[in-house]
Amino acid sequence: MSVAHAARRVVTCDPARATQADPLGVVEDGAIVVLLGRVTWVGPRGDLAPGVPVVDHGDVVLTPGLVDAHTHACWSGSRHAEYAVRMAGGNYEAIAKAGGGIVSTHKSVVGCDAGVLAQELAARLARMATLGVTTVEVKSGYGLVPDAERKQLHAIRDVARNASLPHVVPTFLALHAIPPVSRQDREGYVRHVETVLVPEVARDGLAEFVDAYVDRDAFQVAEARRVFEAAKRGGLGIRVHVGQFADIGGAELAAELGAASVDHLEHVGPSGMFALTASKTRAILLPTASFTLAQTPPPVASLRDAGVELVVASDANPGTAPTESLPLALAFAVRAYGLTPAEAILGATRHAAASLHRFGVSGGVPRGALIAGAAADFVVWDLPHELAIVQPWGVSRTRLVVREGQVLHQAHGHNVQTSPRT
Amino acid sequence: MSVAHAARRVVTCDPARATQADPLGVVEDGAIVVLLGRVTWVGPRGDLAPGVPVVDHGDVVLTPGLVDAHTHACWSGSRHAEYAVRMAGGNYEAIAKAGGGIVSTHKSVVGCDAGVLAQELAARLARMATLGVTTVEVKSGYGLVPDAERKQLHAIRDVARNASLPHVVPTFLALHAIPPVSRQDREGYVRHVETVLVPEVARDGLAEFVDAYVDRDAFQVAEARRVFEAAKRGGLGIRVHVGQFADIGGAELAAELGAASVDHLEHVGPSGMFALTASKTRAILLPTASFTLAQTPPPVASLRDAGVELVVASDANPGTAPTESLPLALAFAVRAYGLTPAEAILGATRHAAASLHRFGVSGGVPRGALIAGAAADFVVWDLPHELAIVQPWGVSRTRLVVREGQVLHQAHGHNVQTSPRT
Repeated sequence: MSVAHAARRVVTCDPARATQADPLGVVEDGAIVVLLGRVTWVGPRGDLAPGVPVVDHGDVVLTPGLVDAHTHACWSGSRHAEYAVRMAGGNYEAIAKAGGGIVSTHKSVVGCDAGVLAQELAARLARMATLGVTTVEVKSGYGLVPDAERKQLHAIRDVARNASLPHVVPTFLALHAIPPVSRQDREGYVRHVETVLVPEVARDGLAEFVDAYVDRDAFQVAEARRVFEAAKRGGLGIRVHVGQFADIGGAELAAELGAASVDHLEHVGPSGMFALTASKTRAILLPTASFTLAQTPPPVASLRDAGVELVVASDANPGTAPTESLPLALAFAVRAYGLTPAEAILGATRHAAASLHRFGVSGGVPRGALIAGAAADFVVWDLPHELAIVQPWGVSRTRLVVREGQVLHQAHGHNVQTSPRT
Repeated sequence: MSVAHAARRVVTCDPARATQADPLGVVEDGAIVVLLGRVTWVGPRGDLAPGVPVVDHGDVVLTPGLVDAHTHACWSGSRHAEYAVRMAGGNYEAIAKAGGGIVSTHKSVVGCDAGVLAQELAARLARMATLGVTTVEVKSGYGLVPDAERKQLHAIRDVARNASLPHVVPTFLALHAIPPVSRQDREGYVRHVETVLVPEVARDGLAEFVDAYVDRDAFQVAEARRVFEAAKRGGLGIRVHVGQFADIGGAELAAELGAASVDHLEHVGPSGMFALTASKTRAILLPTASFTLAQTPPPVASLRDAGVELVVASDANPGTAPTESLPLALAFAVRAYGLTPAEAILGATRHAAASLHRFGVSGGVPRGALIAGAAADFVVWDLPHELAIVQPWGVSRTRLVVREGQVLHQAHGHNVQTSPRT
């Protein structure tokens, strides 16, 4: 049975409706029609077919569900002590070398029961849903040793089956850090990832993407290349952590291999920028991490001028971005990175979805935009205008969050009532 | 009937328990006992009197309810367009002169029904409660013209009677901006505030404090002095907006008059610092506002060295701090202002309460610390350690928020069960 949702401003993020003056394709006094979990129609409320029951949300803004395209949300433990040390001036890379950082969460994840890991992830995704997030990319990468990576990927798969949480896109973060047990055999570790784990993950359908952390204290381009080539052989997409602390050529590699995204980019030189310009690889900006690391922003103006599509993500992780809020990342992106509000919103909807192969890919159900045929993932905000979404509220400002037509979150006092059928 | 609440870490903020190594006075494996809305006992769980039923919250941190000591939370309307202009480089003072800023919210509040104003405030306070806030100072100051200021103060009073929301401390923000209708008679406006409104507010018990915005484009020291002297005659406390954009001597005035707080302080020179050193006036830092205004921080190290007690508040307002989150302000205070996590937490508990005459004042019920006799305002966090509170979560991380023994907020899946009586 079709139901229409009407609001004063319907932000479609539909490229066919976008204009230079209105890049978000807003329909004023707009409506969407939902049937069996899909959007079947979008347009002015006055053009609705007669007889469709209408939920009138009033003088508020309705957007696509937000898409968080870069998270490490499958973690256990807490790194609050390390955070406090960093706030007092401690250096992240030095902390990592001393056994903090990724390896500290690795130890926690190794010791954590798979069911508990899944529970923690589910609780986190449920909180993200209250903020308007309906799709979340979740990386492994804290297991590090093969069995613990498998445990993370299985926990992610289990949570992904829960339709009352956001839609999950799993990524195998194949190269994140060398586990302590393999420090004497770096080459053996990379070879095992390349020749055993990536093919296994592809075969078992445990992830859609493979990611690697390419940086001066992480993995070299040559190591990442081997793992990414294995990913391509297995039919998996590629995402790359590039230039968080230093430019060692990750952007060039990502562009060459046709990666879906290059993520971070606080440090990317002219050669990397040139490679991205000629590519279709999207840039995923992670401003909450650079806030906690007190870093200068990535070269946003250059990326924009180069025509690189910008995505904004939370980077949710227990170390550099102990956050669960994509809207807060948007506030940082606008204030600290100089994105326009429209760029930030597209970066958390259509562009984010495209970077996850959830938009513009033949055969799939589109997300991140309100167009006929897309998944009915949408948010009714307790805000009158999309510009207000990028303000630093620090709290849920949603009234209703819907995934595939089903309510993920509803604020107190905002029960949806459908109007009687006519 | 007494009930005990136990947790792995009970952060008391009790000055009698504070040490240099532990300024927050943490009791490990601690408990508080609550009876009739008050804390009656605090100590190690093992020392609990037998027979008291215990709610065991587990391996988490329990703190006093947070106290937000500076908010303009009684507003209507939205200034998202102005926010976007500022993000693109627009100047706040220029926007205000062009009819934006405070005057734009003034127009909205003047046109808003008192009941609607109270509803908006109540909804905002309810969201704040989900974040762990149990006491909120709320200022008038958008009415500007006498009847609209009265309307705001009455709305605040009505909401303050609702025990299912945070405890409210009302402040008459007597000098915030000249209303357009009085632009030709500034002197008459200030005189009316001084001779009519402040005495009336004092007589009717509509506020506990009087505030004024002392800045180069706001009010002069001489104008504020007249209003504050009227406040003192009426038995009201004093709070002062000082040096947000320029130092024009507000800190000296605040110290001279024994103000409860000086707020903002982005611009305060040596003379003002010297005056504060010799005073008992507390400094209220508003880092979310300086984030949105891209300002350099106040001289925190100097304030600390001078022995000025630091408070951190949200500044919740529709223009410069469109936020509802005190925890987010704490994250900014630690990252951008250089407060230690303990300073930030004391600044949102005991020191904030003291600035509102809710701690260290004879005769009143203490708040902001877990000590025998205090209001049973506390938060059970979904976090293992108080250091994690100051991370930029951007979402509620509370399990249970209690005001005077009554539940204000409870996270899904965390229903409190008392253990059976023994």
